[in-house]
Amino acid sequence: MYLIDKNSKIPLHIQLYKEIKKEIIHNLKVGDKLQSIRKVATIYNLSKTSVESAYSQLLAEGYIDSYPKSGYFVTDTNYKNFKKDSNIDIEKKEQKDDFLYDFFHARLEKDSFPLKLWKRIFNKVIDESIDFCTYHDAKGEYGLRLEIAKYLIESRGVNCNANQIIVCNGFINSMGLLIKLLNKKHDTLAIEHPGYYAAREVFELSNYKIKKIPVGKNGIDLRKLEKSEAKLVYITPSHQFPTGVTIPISNRLKLLDWAEKNDALIIEDDYDSELTYETRPIPALQGLDRVGRVIYVGTFSKSLSPALRISYLVVPKFLLEEFSGVFESRVCLFTQKTLERFMNEGHWDRHLRKIRTLNKKKYNLMKKCLEEKLGSSMKIVNQGGGLAIHISPKVSFDWNKLEKLAIKKTIKLHYAKEKSGGEWQALMMGFGGFKEEEIEDAVNSFSEIWHECIIE
Amino acid sequence: MYLIDKNSKIPLHIQLYKEIKKEIIHNLKVGDKLQSIRKVATIYNLSKTSVESAYSQLLAEGYIDSYPKSGYFVTDTNYKNFKKDSNIDIEKKEQKDDFLYDFFHARLEKDSFPLKLWKRIFNKVIDESIDFCTYHDAKGEYGLRLEIAKYLIESRGVNCNANQIIVCNGFINSMGLLIKLLNKKHDTLAIEHPGYYAAREVFELSNYKIKKIPVGKNGIDLRKLEKSEAKLVYITPSHQFPTGVTIPISNRLKLLDWAEKNDALIIEDDYDSELTYETRPIPALQGLDRVGRVIYVGTFSKSLSPALRISYLVVPKFLLEEFSGVFESRVCLFTQKTLERFMNEGHWDRHLRKIRTLNKKKYNLMKKCLEEKLGSSMKIVNQGGGLAIHISPKVSFDWNKLEKLAIKKTIKLHYAKEKSGGEWQALMMGFGGFKEEEIEDAVNSFSEIWHECIIE
Repeated sequence: MYLIDKNSKIPLHIQLYKEIKKEIIHNLKVGDKLQSIRKVATIYNLSKTSVESAYSQLLAEGYIDSYPKSGYFVTDTNYKNFKKDSNIDIEKKEQKDDFLYDFFHARLEKDSFPLKLWKRIFNKVIDESIDFCTYHDAKGEYGLRLEIAKYLIESRGVNCNANQIIVCNGFINSMGLLIKLLNKKHDTLAIEHPGYYAAREVFELSNYKIKKIPVGKNGIDLRKLEKSEAKLVYITPSHQFPTGVTIPISNRLKLLDWAEKNDALIIEDDYDSELTYETRPIPALQGLDRVGRVIYVGTFSKSLSPALRISYLVVPKFLLEEFSGVFESRVCLFTQKTLERFMNEGHWDRHLRKIRTLNKKKYNLMKKCLEEKLGSSMKIVNQGGGLAIHISPKVSFDWNKLEKLAIKKTIKLHYAKEKSGGEWQALMMGFGGFKEEEIEDAVNSFSEIWHECIIE
Repeated sequence: MYLIDKNSKIPLHIQLYKEIKKEIIHNLKVGDKLQSIRKVATIYNLSKTSVESAYSQLLAEGYIDSYPKSGYFVTDTNYKNFKKDSNIDIEKKEQKDDFLYDFFHARLEKDSFPLKLWKRIFNKVIDESIDFCTYHDAKGEYGLRLEIAKYLIESRGVNCNANQIIVCNGFINSMGLLIKLLNKKHDTLAIEHPGYYAAREVFELSNYKIKKIPVGKNGIDLRKLEKSEAKLVYITPSHQFPTGVTIPISNRLKLLDWAEKNDALIIEDDYDSELTYETRPIPALQGLDRVGRVIYVGTFSKSLSPALRISYLVVPKFLLEEFSGVFESRVCLFTQKTLERFMNEGHWDRHLRKIRTLNKKKYNLMKKCLEEKLGSSMKIVNQGGGLAIHISPKVSFDWNKLEKLAIKKTIKLHYAKEKSGGEWQALMMGFGGFKEEEIEDAVNSFSEIWHECIIE
C-alpha cells in the first residue's frame, strides 16, 4: 500500500515515487513486476500523468526497467543499504593559532588595504555591460594588461607591451604557467642558493632537475652559473631572497651576455622591488635585456593584497607562441576589472607611495629598536627594502632554545633557512604586519628571549 | 660640468645623479675616479647630503664602486646603449569574432547572472572585519565550504563534510590539484571514449597514460574497464559528455564494486546535473559510495558564472592527507565571501530554480524548432539536460560543406568531435546562450545551411 496524502504540499508524483522506491528497496526483489500505470492511477485516484512521472523517475534512476508490451520490472541491484546517513559530521572549523606577536616577513598591516576605495570602484566598474556568463581572455583582460604594462614601463623600467603580459592567479600559478611554456625545451633550473624555496619546489614537482648556484655579495655567482651549463635560471636581482643583496649593474650585464651566448633564459622575480627605503627602486634587469632573454615575474600579493590572487608574467615574444590559452587558469573577472580601474585612476601609484612611506617609518623604527635592544649581539644581514629586516647573531647562539622559547611565549618567528635552501640562517623580522605603535613592544618581547639564547 | 638647476622642481640629488650617470655612460671609462663628495658639494654649492644621496644611488645601481680610503670609481660595464626605447609598441586589442548566431553549448544568457543581487551582497559582506593583507585557507574559506557541503548533501545526495571540500579556481585548476593529490600512486587514467577532451588533456600534460574505454547506452563499458586494469577512471555519470547517456543504478553499483575490489578511484564529474528538464536530477554516484572511492568534481561555471573562477572537489578523507596546501592556487577571497553569503541567504537555490525553469523553456523551444525545421533528416542524440541539444544527421551528410557554409553565414557551430575523442560526431546546438525570442530565428538560419548539406 502506498501512502499518498492529497493534502500534502509535496507533489503527488514525488510522493508516489518515494513510496515505490521504499517498496523496491525493502520488499521487492529483482524481476518483480510493478503494477501497470493505469492500475496505480485507478487504485490511488491519481492522474495517469502523475504515475507516469513517478515511474519515469524510477526508470531514469535505474530502479526499474521497462519492457515494451510487458511492463515495469525491478532491476538487478546487489546493494541493500540505500538509506542515507542523516548525521553528516561537519567538522568544526580548525582553530587558527593566536600569537602575541607574529613577525611574519611578507605582509602589510590589515588597514593597508584601501577597502572603501576598492568597494567604490567595484560598484562603479561592475555593471551590465560585462558578460559574466561567458569565458574571458585567457591572458587576462586587455585593459588590465595595458595598465600593468604602463606601470612596469614607467616605474620598473621594464620593456613590454600589453600583449606580453599574462595575468595569473598568484605566484604558484605564474610558475605553473611558465613551466608549461618552457617544457618543450627545458628540464633543468638553476637557482640561487640560498634562494626562494617555493620557486624551486614548483619546478621540482614538475620533474625539473635543480642546480644550486651560490650567492655572493654581488648576487648569484656568475662563474659557477656558467660552469653549471644551465639554460634557465631563476633569480631575485633587486633584492635577493633571503640575503638581500642587489646585483650590481656590471653583473647584470654579464648575466645578460651569458644568457645570449648560451641561448639561455633568465626568470627575474621582482617581488618586492617597490618597497625600497634607502635608495630609489633599482630598475628591473629586464629593462636592460635587448634580445628577449628575460621573463619578468611580478605580483600584487605583497604590495596590495594576497587575497586578490593576482600576479603577472611579462613574457618574451617568442615564448608567447607556446601560450595556447586553453588550459590556463583565468583570474576572477570582477577582481580584474576593479584592479584595472584602480590602476587607471591613479590609485595604485598613490597606494604604493603610501605603503612605501608607511613601511619606511616602520622599517626605521624596527631597525632602531633591534639595534638598541640587541646591540652588538646581532648583525643586520638584509636591509633597505621589503617587509622584514633579516638579522643574525654575532655571538654563539642557541637556535633550538630560541624556537622553544618563542613557542612558549607565543611569539611567532620566521626563519630564513625554512624558506630557502641550505645552511644560510637568519631571523626574518617582519615589520610590515605590525602597526607602528606595536613595534617597540614586539621587539622588547622578542629581545628578552633573544638574550636568553646567547651562549656566554 | 654638471648642470644643476636650483630652481627646478626636481630634487637636487636626483639632478646630480642623472648628470653623473650621463657622464659615466658617455665620457668616462672603467676605473676613472669620481670627484670626492666634499669637492662636488663645494663646486656645485650643494649639501654634502645631496651629493651622498646621488653617489649612493649610483653605487646601488652599480655604476660606481666605492673603495675605502680611495674614493669612487667607475665600474666595469661593456654595455654602451642605456637609452630606453621611448616608443613602446602597445598592440591593439585583438578583435573578437562577431557571429550572427553562436550555438555555444556551455553557457547561459548574459542576463542570467544576478548582478544587482551579487553587488548588494558584495557590499554587505566585504567589510573591515576581513584581513585582506594575509593569506587565507588554502582549501578555501570554511564558511563557503560549509555552504557547498550543505548544497551537495541536500541537492545532489553527496556524502561529505565541509573539510572534504576544496575550493578551486575552475575545472583545469581542479584537475591540476587532483593530479597532485594522486601522483604518488597513479600514472594512468581511464576515460570514456568519446569523452571530455579537457579532462584527458590535463592528465596527458602531466604525463599520465590514457586508456580509452568505449561508452554504450548505459555509459562506460564496465567489462572493458575491468580488462583495462586501470586504477583511476574519469566519468560523467549523470549526463555523459557528449553522448548524454545516464549510467543506470545497476551499473553505478557495479562501478563501485569494481573500484572497491580493485583498489581503484572514480572521478565523477557532475558538471551540469542541476540542469535536467525531463526528470528530476539524478543523485550523484558519490552518494552511493560507502568506502571513499569517489572523488566528486563540481563547478559554478556552468550554472552561475565562468567569470567567477570557482569550482570544487569533494575528496575522500584518505586523499586529504596528500593536500599540503602550500602549493595550491587559492581563490579570490572577495568572490568566495560573496558566494558564501549568496548561498547562505538562499539565493543559489532560487537561482538554480530560475535557471532550470528558463532553460527548460528554451530547451523545449529549440527541440520543437529543430524537429520542425530539420524533420526526419536528423535525430536527437543527447537530450533532457544541460545547455545544448546534440543532433546528428540521419541521412548522408556533407560535414565539410556545413563547416564552410556556417563560417560564410557567420553562424558559429560546435562539433562534439572537437571536444571529445574519436569518431563520435554530433552538432552541439546550444540554447543556453540565446534569449528565448532568438531561438526560432537562430534555428531557421541554421536549418537553411543544414538542408544544403544533405546529400540526396
